[in-house]
Amino acid sequence: MAPLKSWLSIPQDSHFSLANLPFGIITSKNSQTEKRPAVAIGELVLDLQAFAHGDGFSSLPSLKDHLSVFSQPTLNAFAALGQPIHREVRTYLQNILSDTTTHPQILKDNVSLQKTALLPKHETKTHLPMQIGDYTDFYAGENHAFNAGCLFRGPANALQPNYFHIPIGYHGRASTVVVSGTPIRRPNGQLLLDSTADPKIPTFGPSRRLDIELELGCLLCKANPMGEPVPIEEAEQAIFGFVLMNDWSARDIQAWEYVPLGPFNGKNFGTTISPWVVLFDALDHFRVEKLKNETKLLPYLEEGRPDTVYDINLEVDLTTPGPEGSTTTISRGSGRNLVWSFAQMIAHHSVGGCAMQPGDLLGSGTISTKDDSGLGSLLEMSAGGKKEIMLAGMDVRKFLKDGDTITIRGVCGGEPGALVGFGECVGTIESAIVFS
Amino acid sequence: MAPLKSWLSIPQDSHFSLANLPFGIITSKNSQTEKRPAVAIGELVLDLQAFAHGDGFSSLPSLKDHLSVFSQPTLNAFAALGQPIHREVRTYLQNILSDTTTHPQILKDNVSLQKTALLPKHETKTHLPMQIGDYTDFYAGENHAFNAGCLFRGPANALQPNYFHIPIGYHGRASTVVVSGTPIRRPNGQLLLDSTADPKIPTFGPSRRLDIELELGCLLCKANPMGEPVPIEEAEQAIFGFVLMNDWSARDIQAWEYVPLGPFNGKNFGTTISPWVVLFDALDHFRVEKLKNETKLLPYLEEGRPDTVYDINLEVDLTTPGPEGSTTTISRGSGRNLVWSFAQMIAHHSVGGCAMQPGDLLGSGTISTKDDSGLGSLLEMSAGGKKEIMLAGMDVRKFLKDGDTITIRGVCGGEPGALVGFGECVGTIESAIVFS
Ligand SMILES: [Ca+2]
Ligand SMILES: [Ca+2]
Ligand SMILES: [Mg+2]
Ligand SMILES: [Mg+2]
Ligand code: NI
Repeated sequence: MAPLKSWLSIPQDSHFSLANLPFGIITSKNSQTEKRPAVAIGELVLDLQAFAHGDGFSSLPSLKDHLSVFSQPTLNAFAALGQPIHREVRTYLQNILSDTTTHPQILKDNVSLQKTALLPKHETKTHLPMQIGDYTDFYAGENHAFNAGCLFRGPANALQPNYFHIPIGYHGRASTVVVSGTPIRRPNGQLLLDSTADPKIPTFGPSRRLDIELELGCLLCKANPMGEPVPIEEAEQAIFGFVLMNDWSARDIQAWEYVPLGPFNGKNFGTTISPWVVLFDALDHFRVEKLKNETKLLPYLEEGRPDTVYDINLEVDLTTPGPEGSTTTISRGSGRNLVWSFAQMIAHHSVGGCAMQPGDLLGSGTISTKDDSGLGSLLEMSAGGKKEIMLAGMDVRKFLKDGDTITIRGVCGGEPGALVGFGECVGTIESAIVFS
Repeated sequence: MAPLKSWLSIPQDSHFSLANLPFGIITSKNSQTEKRPAVAIGELVLDLQAFAHGDGFSSLPSLKDHLSVFSQPTLNAFAALGQPIHREVRTYLQNILSDTTTHPQILKDNVSLQKTALLPKHETKTHLPMQIGDYTDFYAGENHAFNAGCLFRGPANALQPNYFHIPIGYHGRASTVVVSGTPIRRPNGQLLLDSTADPKIPTFGPSRRLDIELELGCLLCKANPMGEPVPIEEAEQAIFGFVLMNDWSARDIQAWEYVPLGPFNGKNFGTTISPWVVLFDALDHFRVEKLKNETKLLPYLEEGRPDTVYDINLEVDLTTPGPEGSTTTISRGSGRNLVWSFAQMIAHHSVGGCAMQPGDLLGSGTISTKDDSGLGSLLEMSAGGKKEIMLAGMDVRKFLKDGDTITIRGVCGGEPGALVGFGECVGTIESAIVFS
């Protein structure tokens, strides 16, 4: 179909076309302390607090009693209204911003509201979009799980016997999920420099194997009470939307600490998410089949349809530090490389009665292609630190150096003017603290 | 020293002597919806909101600007004031409630404030004392770690090479931490009934090996920003207080899911804590040396003193269901059976830069005695489900049956009238949901 056209001028290659309308939390030059919800549209953001105050929602009477959600410092209250309301609001805003809007008086012909509610994006700052109650990281990227397993256990035992039965996941650290742009300090920790020594004696220092994990994040909008599982047929209704995610990982800290209870300090020093939440509906056109799982699933994980992951073009750039720094795209992959859907993750997570809440964050697990073109971690790109990753200007990396910047991009669709993208998920590595 | 005496009548065997004064969150018969802070004293609770409104803190002028913390539905705001303020408030309340109070006009001689602020405990209901941002469960109970390791790997490899170097822990699920008395529904999940079969095919159903874990919980009062570790010398200042904790565990779900990323659905269906937070200061008299660790620690874990765990007498009762039900004390242990202190856990948790916040909950790990008298889990008591645990009336258990109630008690000191106790941490097992 032809792209929706806006009366605003939106660059053809913008991630934030009228087909997208992702939600985020901003402050702005003219209101630097008040965090409030906004929608990204091209090079602008629509300040939803200002829009609501200026009667922007007056032609959407069903929202009348809920306008206070746009005067909150997070999207949790808006998310908790549920998918039908998100759908109404997004459709309404598409109408308002469309060049064939049926309500031109609201914004198109209302210069005064345009002045207060439409802000140049470069005059705004984005913040963590939701208050994250709990963060869970899954392991649904089969190619990554296989690649990582090969490095540690060889191809015959790369995947555990439970892998195709259970969407494997672990509880992550919610307090250190940060928005794109937040610097990430290299962690210190215990490192086992000689893993063959007996006895094994760790040393202490900055991680030498600091890595990234390219993931898709899923933010929830629905609560289930403790003891009441979410059935798989209803699980997609719990999805508010999606963000890009970088699950920074210190491989050396992780390797020494993680048996038997899983990753801890190797992961909890920081997780970066992109600021704009692409709503569940906005990705609907880009559904594709997930990776084939030959295993007969238990009924609570059986989905009614196979197309429950998304064809998101994913790219990872590594920018080296300083004025001489260069940028190399080190990975070009796709969101389709998952063997479990978020609906399956939600059904599994809650099947024993675990309570979920609006604002909970689920990570997909690292997304890697089957071949080498779109790997989601430096661990895989460097074959476990055994070979160098070539960068522009003959620079090389195995893992991250101080000052390196990682930028993840994700975008769906190829039609100019109709892209549905995530923007960027960026983080720069700061030097580790020096312990005296 | 002689016990502090109160002008109130406090039973000699009360956990809540004047030497204790633990903080909690209550509602009451006369105010059933407004959650607010309170202090437990004998068979009464002091409603701190009512006490503050009735000028109860008028002789503690330093608190004047902070009284709003007593009109909050959690203790987070009070906790965030920091240990020096907790100390002032607790000492002040000990004075106010002492028979030699220097401020008799405040409460002792103020019948009208007594009426509004001193409530019979049985007319109040306790709630989760804090909003828990993140919950982390450690594994510092060496005897339990050894016993569990023996069951899975034999005595030679019972403890992993990292065990005496790192206070091992994993991120738990904050959303299902509940207050004592909340029913716990038996979880459904994937069970590998025949672990020797090839291929391994799980079945689905209610956990058959539902267990307890007797732990001490530690609630934090201090934030450290992301990227800024808490030095071990300052780590105790981050402790608000302590609660008893039951980390309910489904051993069969856990066994199948936990490799390689740790416990997940085997744990996240519920964790129970006792309602009254025993403040850091209140346990100071009961410090004892932790279990001897022969391993040379890295400096960031070296404590200035050896007495950093507590001599808490711990008991576990199992009450069988129905009118014929009986109660058996199945464990009598002590809080001294830890090889890592909470200060060490905090220093380790934050050493890579993980941010901590007031309200964060740390679990000690299961606390077991070296001999069989005070084991912290049914897994250990039943030798991995191989032998029966004898109960009153010739009843037996290996793991929990539906309707069973577990009651954990913990108390410090033996002097009548001067006990510092936690009260009870109770949970009853409800039948699993039936999947159709
Ligand atoms: Ca990950
Ligand atoms: Ca535990
Ligand atoms: Mg992370
Ligand atoms: Mg638990
Ligand atoms: Ni309309």
